[in-house]
Amino acid sequence: MSQAPLYQGKAKQIWSHSDGLYTMRFTDCATAFNAKKKADIAGKGVLNRDICDIIYKYLEKEGIATHLVETSGTSDLIVKQLKMIPVEVIVRNISAGSLCKRLGVKPDQEIAPPIMELNLKSDPLDDPLINEDHIVWMKLASIENIAQMKEISGKINLALQKLFLKCDILLADFKVEFGIDAEGNMLLGDEITPDGCRLWDKNSKKILDKDVFRRDLGSLTEAYEEVYRRLSSI
Amino acid sequence: MSQAPLYQGKAKQIWSHSDGLYTMRFTDCATAFNAKKKADIAGKGVLNRDICDIIYKYLEKEGIATHLVETSGTSDLIVKQLKMIPVEVIVRNISAGSLCKRLGVKPDQEIAPPIMELNLKSDPLDDPLINEDHIVWMKLASIENIAQMKEISGKINLALQKLFLKCDILLADFKVEFGIDAEGNMLLGDEITPDGCRLWDKNSKKILDKDVFRRDLGSLTEAYEEVYRRLSSI
Repeated sequence: MSQAPLYQGKAKQIWSHSDGLYTMRFTDCATAFNAKKKADIAGKGVLNRDICDIIYKYLEKEGIATHLVETSGTSDLIVKQLKMIPVEVIVRNISAGSLCKRLGVKPDQEIAPPIMELNLKSDPLDDPLINEDHIVWMKLASIENIAQMKEISGKINLALQKLFLKCDILLADFKVEFGIDAEGNMLLGDEITPDGCRLWDKNSKKILDKDVFRRDLGSLTEAYEEVYRRLSSI
Repeated sequence: MSQAPLYQGKAKQIWSHSDGLYTMRFTDCATAFNAKKKADIAGKGVLNRDICDIIYKYLEKEGIATHLVETSGTSDLIVKQLKMIPVEVIVRNISAGSLCKRLGVKPDQEIAPPIMELNLKSDPLDDPLINEDHIVWMKLASIENIAQMKEISGKINLALQKLFLKCDILLADFKVEFGIDAEGNMLLGDEITPDGCRLWDKNSKKILDKDVFRRDLGSLTEAYEEVYRRLSSI
């Protein structure tokens, strides 16, 4: 682990092992608006690691295959090596954020059935919205892969809505990424944490996700601790 | 026709008749970059009217139902009144323009099968890319309507590629809009002209469409006259 990471992301670092595994480290770095806003927030990495661990273990029980193997140290997950598909799937149950800005629609509107968006994973291009035709032409994934990603994302949405509702949290939207393992199986990769979800207290509508940082609404770690506390107590 | 138009677009005006028809007038106004660049170009309206008339008559022969009834005056088309679906369908056979900018891909790359894009028709929002889920949630069209729009757009693409190839012109991309008539039929509405297509001479790759205006490449009317001359001589 003394060598440079294989991948240095905005809020994660990844090291490759010789045994087909990765170490995925959650850092304290918080970024927003494609890293135009940036800060170090002590304790965020540990919280995100613990939240992701709870969620991925829950999803495995619900029949969703993930890359999670085990936790390690204070802020690492050991995960299976995947060939990542460079497409983010965003699932939206309530209108918020970029959806409202792009389409000129009001926030806080119910979306049922949910909207599913495919975005090209590209910091320089600001993760633009794309469709199946773009993905196939750019050879990012096959049409079968895309259908599978969307199907699994729908199942993840149902499972997560159920999980968060038990915690009195509304899941407004979330982002997931997928990859293919050595056996050719599609697994949920990356992370699911309040960094990539919109989570609101069901009653007070208090914001419990990265919008606290984006919009300067208070203490980010207090919000993430609240999510961790509720998830770990059910 | 002395009253104010029902619709005042960037390059068209529309008047409503009492008999279920519209007069659609092609103006000399040229705009680009969502009307940030604007000019009056004498003769453009007449040329676009004549080109659209040739193309829509050809498409009708190829089995595509359009709103065209007849020509009128020097720059008008008489068309059926449609309830327009506020979604533009863009079909791309060669990479160019906004596709390259948004996705960071090289221009002049063949796209086969073609890419089909759905865009929300909205000047204030700059016609953002959307997908089927957005359209259904925003109640812009039904899922069946969208499937039909895409199917007809594919047929239009094949027919137009054949037509333009006879004129030694490559059809890089084009935009179409659809509407529903009084009997509930989906018809091709709006226009197909060099304002909304990318047309390149097959051999010299000389640009024969609105990119001449967008990119200050010479005389727009000379380019449009070339397209009209070739279309009317086959």
